[in-house]
Amino acid sequence: MAKTTGALTSSYDKLMAKAKEITILETIDSVIHWDMETKMPPKGINLRSQQLAMLSQIEHKMSTNPEIETLLSKIEKHPNYDTLKGLQKRNVYLIRKNYDEQTKLPEELVVETARQQAIAIDVWKKAKATKNFSMFQPELEKLLELKKKAAEILMQVKGTATLYDALIDIFEPKMTAETIAKIFGELKEGLVSIMVKCLNASKQPDTSFLRRRVSFGIQRKISNELAKFTEYDVESPKARGRIDETEHPFTTGYYDDVRITTHYYEDNFTSSLFSVLHEAGHAIYDQNLKPEWIYQPIGTSCSLGFHESQSRFVENIIGRSREFWVYFFPKLKELTDNAFSDLALNDFVRAINRVRPSKIRVEADEVTYCLHVIIRFEVERELIAGKIDVADLPEIWNRKYKEYLDVDVENDSEGVMQDTHWASGYFGYFPTYALGNIYSGQILVALERALPSWRDQIAKGKFHDVKKWLIQNVHHYGNLYDSAILLEKITGGEINAKPYLVYLNEKYSWIYGY
Amino acid sequence: MAKTTGALTSSYDKLMAKAKEITILETIDSVIHWDMETKMPPKGINLRSQQLAMLSQIEHKMSTNPEIETLLSKIEKHPNYDTLKGLQKRNVYLIRKNYDEQTKLPEELVVETARQQAIAIDVWKKAKATKNFSMFQPELEKLLELKKKAAEILMQVKGTATLYDALIDIFEPKMTAETIAKIFGELKEGLVSIMVKCLNASKQPDTSFLRRRVSFGIQRKISNELAKFTEYDVESPKARGRIDETEHPFTTGYYDDVRITTHYYEDNFTSSLFSVLHEAGHAIYDQNLKPEWIYQPIGTSCSLGFHESQSRFVENIIGRSREFWVYFFPKLKELTDNAFSDLALNDFVRAINRVRPSKIRVEADEVTYCLHVIIRFEVERELIAGKIDVADLPEIWNRKYKEYLDVDVENDSEGVMQDTHWASGYFGYFPTYALGNIYSGQILVALERALPSWRDQIAKGKFHDVKKWLIQNVHHYGNLYDSAILLEKITGGEINAKPYLVYLNEKYSWIYGY
Repeated sequence: MAKTTGALTSSYDKLMAKAKEITILETIDSVIHWDMETKMPPKGINLRSQQLAMLSQIEHKMSTNPEIETLLSKIEKHPNYDTLKGLQKRNVYLIRKNYDEQTKLPEELVVETARQQAIAIDVWKKAKATKNFSMFQPELEKLLELKKKAAEILMQVKGTATLYDALIDIFEPKMTAETIAKIFGELKEGLVSIMVKCLNASKQPDTSFLRRRVSFGIQRKISNELAKFTEYDVESPKARGRIDETEHPFTTGYYDDVRITTHYYEDNFTSSLFSVLHEAGHAIYDQNLKPEWIYQPIGTSCSLGFHESQSRFVENIIGRSREFWVYFFPKLKELTDNAFSDLALNDFVRAINRVRPSKIRVEADEVTYCLHVIIRFEVERELIAGKIDVADLPEIWNRKYKEYLDVDVENDSEGVMQDTHWASGYFGYFPTYALGNIYSGQILVALERALPSWRDQIAKGKFHDVKKWLIQNVHHYGNLYDSAILLEKITGGEINAKPYLVYLNEKYSWIYGY
Repeated sequence: MAKTTGALTSSYDKLMAKAKEITILETIDSVIHWDMETKMPPKGINLRSQQLAMLSQIEHKMSTNPEIETLLSKIEKHPNYDTLKGLQKRNVYLIRKNYDEQTKLPEELVVETARQQAIAIDVWKKAKATKNFSMFQPELEKLLELKKKAAEILMQVKGTATLYDALIDIFEPKMTAETIAKIFGELKEGLVSIMVKCLNASKQPDTSFLRRRVSFGIQRKISNELAKFTEYDVESPKARGRIDETEHPFTTGYYDDVRITTHYYEDNFTSSLFSVLHEAGHAIYDQNLKPEWIYQPIGTSCSLGFHESQSRFVENIIGRSREFWVYFFPKLKELTDNAFSDLALNDFVRAINRVRPSKIRVEADEVTYCLHVIIRFEVERELIAGKIDVADLPEIWNRKYKEYLDVDVENDSEGVMQDTHWASGYFGYFPTYALGNIYSGQILVALERALPSWRDQIAKGKFHDVKKWLIQNVHHYGNLYDSAILLEKITGGEINAKPYLVYLNEKYSWIYGY
């Protein structure tokens, strides 16, 4: 019997070695992508797209190596399979899932998709700069066709009801468009109600001072100060992170090398300020996965929705709270050479929380933000279902923005081309942004129960205990459970938009005095 | 017959596809290395070393893929082999050479060498910091043994006369220690004669003003200005390069993405200034390989010696010429806010060309530089031949520095441990530095014949025609010929130290008025 278990252990170890290889290759891919977004000379794009295609190809080969099937079968059919620990079984499950999906995708399709993504992103940048959707359209059409081909195959393997569900499952495993539509329905209703109350309030925040000019140099200092607050080290000889500048902020990396980016605007310093908090929220999740699980499938984040719950938690629940500004407002005054010394704390907090429907998702306030996401969800759901075409996107986009947010989109660069996601082939990704907000509301309830003093601590500039709780209750679970299960572990219940709406309502009734 | 030629073409195309894969993988490796040196957070080193090990392993597998042997045999034995063009035959030859060498080296030896190199570099850094050669010695001994084992195998494959020749061939194909020794003999005699004349001259340049403080911000502007001069675009939306900062300057990249680094010292601004020109010389070589040859073995540089000829040409023959400073001195004054306005052009040119024997190679002037290289060549030649031991290095090193340059080496950190090359296992690399200088002198004669007005053009800030000549006569040849043949194509003769000595003598007789 010992010998048999030995064989099981040996197969498991071999399987984990294969998983480690794949993980390391993915981290190479992530550095190459980061470089493309941050540092690569513009003309490097051609070579870069070939590098990325090759990495996809190698990754695909590694992921579909028949030895993995052999090892998986040995383990799954082993008489002592049940002696494996829960986390070992989860590793086996995750590898099986990935293997089955990857082996069904033809290598040609994978390589062609990687190549087309690189082209589409490049063309999207140019089209956005020149407000020319028709330049972008053919590249997006090609990419969409490739993604739909992949979705058809994945739908079979995953056993999802629709093509779109197969794509959602990539980012939020087991989540469906039907569940999302239901929860987004409640969410939309609640948000619109809060939005209307805010817009109708007699006293509207003055935000004019947020346009005061803050130099890039000072904004960089603010970024470093925020990084320090979140204990995201970017400066010391033991740093595990760094901050760079890109058109669109993002986070990438793994454990000891997790990088964030931001975008500085001289006449809108809070744009970068909240981006840095947002991305730092992502970064500390990736940095604080359980160290013992590094290179294992369970040693990654649970889902994109959970990832977003962490970034939105740090950006909004912490970063836009009155308590955070009790701590940070004096620092801001100091760093900006008293450019904001004439302002009262409450006026500043009201300004950074002003609710105003707008055209740009990444600039949206907390109340309207999810409405932007809901629009994208509805549009891409129909796009993948073939009910609308790429050519229709601008018109449908603009119509929905008028209907939901009452704003007029004047050109496609501030409309349908504002985000990089579709150019990157990330269909099914957008809903996770709103899911993250919903999760963050539920996580907040759990945190308040466990650490009732958390607001006082933030007011003193102490993030440490909140972070510790997040690490223990979210980050350290890694990918041990699908998001629905993890949510239940943390909050005791299933996905529910109410806590988030309650949080918003409490906050905004104070901000707007309604 | 058409069918047979079709089979040849098909095998050739397949072989080229394999070569392309290897090239693209190498460019990935180069971005990952660049990131490690420039941007990686310090704690990322552990993951990074695993990424690099994986890339080496993949590259080794690709390079030794038996399909390459099958394709090579088919092509080489094909009755219509002679119908291949010269450049196709060269591609086949270069792939055959690399394949034979890679497959003959046991994987165990390759892995063990990679591991020992990492250890030796790490220990070298610590030993250099603490001036402790005996700490470094055992690791260098182990590495030397491994390199000698590899050299024994490579000597068989390459058919070289000595172990050392097999190592030189890695960096300067077909070059031998015997040829080098002969040419270095003449070079040394000539250099010592010029050096003595300079040191004995009655009027010695004043260099004190070169220590004037120039802020990093201004030095960065100077770098961009120099890049502009060399048409090494780092700023426009069509840029194919970029400049970053590292401890030791270097160049890396391929065609449309070639990057350089520099190191700024506030009290020594010319250090970065000439580094930028030097690295730009390397960069424009790699950027101007024939575009049609991209991803082919012929679409790389000829040899390290030729690479160095280009960097030294731009750094010294151009960058330290009086004509360059006719153009650039007013710019420098402007950029530094008139910090050098009190100086006369000729005094500045004399200062940047001062000859003074020193202990550190990378700080050496044009006249003494090659003497540093000759010492290293003589030492490593005897080391590989087993005539001296690692333990003897400090004593022999210091003795030669006294004898050739009349300087006293006070500790091994500024002596035998100053360079990273041996710790990195790069035995046979050093001589290419002096070969590059020699080539640059011969290339200068050819340029002067073809473009007699080149000095006037440089004085007007116009590098364009010189660059065009270099592209047509050096860069565009890529790796079509071994260096001796390429040199003959360009200069009509074989390697010869005289032109370089004539160039130096003319220049320094003006600088020192001897």
